[in-house]
Amino acid sequence: MRNIKLHLQYDGSAFHGWQVQPNADTVESQLKAAIDRILHEPVRLQSCSRTDSGVHALDFCCNFKTASDISVEKLLRGLNAVLPQQIAVTRCETADEDFHARYSCKGKCYLYRIWNAKTRNPFLLDRALLYPFALDEKLLDSAAQAYVGTHDFAAFCAAGASVKTTVRTVYSCSVTREEEMVTFSVTGNGFLYNMVRIMVGTLLDINEGKLPAGSIPAILAQKDRTLAGRTARPEGLYLARVYYEDGEWNEP
Amino acid sequence: MRNIKLHLQYDGSAFHGWQVQPNADTVESQLKAAIDRILHEPVRLQSCSRTDSGVHALDFCCNFKTASDISVEKLLRGLNAVLPQQIAVTRCETADEDFHARYSCKGKCYLYRIWNAKTRNPFLLDRALLYPFALDEKLLDSAAQAYVGTHDFAAFCAAGASVKTTVRTVYSCSVTREEEMVTFSVTGNGFLYNMVRIMVGTLLDINEGKLPAGSIPAILAQKDRTLAGRTARPEGLYLARVYYEDGEWNEP
Repeated sequence: MRNIKLHLQYDGSAFHGWQVQPNADTVESQLKAAIDRILHEPVRLQSCSRTDSGVHALDFCCNFKTASDISVEKLLRGLNAVLPQQIAVTRCETADEDFHARYSCKGKCYLYRIWNAKTRNPFLLDRALLYPFALDEKLLDSAAQAYVGTHDFAAFCAAGASVKTTVRTVYSCSVTREEEMVTFSVTGNGFLYNMVRIMVGTLLDINEGKLPAGSIPAILAQKDRTLAGRTARPEGLYLARVYYEDGEWNEP
Repeated sequence: MRNIKLHLQYDGSAFHGWQVQPNADTVESQLKAAIDRILHEPVRLQSCSRTDSGVHALDFCCNFKTASDISVEKLLRGLNAVLPQQIAVTRCETADEDFHARYSCKGKCYLYRIWNAKTRNPFLLDRALLYPFALDEKLLDSAAQAYVGTHDFAAFCAAGASVKTTVRTVYSCSVTREEEMVTFSVTGNGFLYNMVRIMVGTLLDINEGKLPAGSIPAILAQKDRTLAGRTARPEGLYLARVYYEDGEWNEP
């Protein structure tokens, strides 16, 4: 059996998230149907993560085993021909036998885009959070540095999520501005359910004075979801990179 | 009567162009309905130009006369509240009595965006031309300099258009690349029907060797539409700026 590794991009506003669900159009169900149509073989997909409804991917990775000897070039072209336009396969490779999109993953980078203007941008509907209030990106960049390091992120995990441990390492994060576009960027070894959206919601609560600028260390220490800020809406969130080599996130 | 000047942005993929048409959803018909809903007054709109179905605007200008004494702030907020999300009013001002969005216009800048990659970008569907072949932006930038100046652009005007003169002045144009995104930018005092799309189509024909790189001066001189290249698809085209002051296009 060959182990095929795919990298995808998708516009999450067109789908009910990644994972197969009954009676909902998801990226995984579209991809499974497309693979079945090309290879005439139902496959089991392993994915780097799940994304929620409305969340986008600039670089999502998944893998599957197949008996087919189709060339990776032909598979890539075939999948792009039959997938909905809102999904693109950007890379298709034969991976090592033991490669697993989830367990082999060493790190991920997420972006959260905020359109900080009084009026909407028609080209960013469902692609960024519209935030019409004054936003102090320097204050938020400084506050966000408290996320860096190895912490128990229990306060930044949606209630009801079941995981073995809520300890994660954030390698770096930043809040930057280019005119009206403010971007929160975070790289880490793994992320809990809704973690990035709660990190952003907490920063927005700090921006609005609902939480003190220096409150993040205490929120982390108390591990209580109710102490962190709101969960920011999904449309600003992009899974931007998945890393399978240690330290790859430090490369330019 | 006050003369109200509006600047708009819109995603052209949602509409059948600017101009009111029977049985079609257009930007003008949406804007007229929105103004009527706020001011309870049908108005006559003057616009800087018309855009075709699928063509976008980053800065479109129109004006209308009204007896209303509504503040421009309230009018802007009201229009944005009732317009479809794919249209945004970015500025609303009281203009001089003799301001006319079309006749007062001194120049315009158009952008044409080309996604030059083997695979589609799900975030640029209907927002850029997908062009999967090798594209030599330096060759095209050099060829495009022949558009600059005052010329009879009859060869770059869709057949059947009726205008007094087909002479226009192009102030500047360029073809630039940022990774996979190639942008054709052109500024001039006015543009004929489909002129920018035929300018781009001619450059793509040059890129593909269907026309010699130095052919543009002869095409201009012969004034024959059949000698110029194809009409590039609408989705890459953006009306990017409208200028009402002479030389404003030279400002940084």
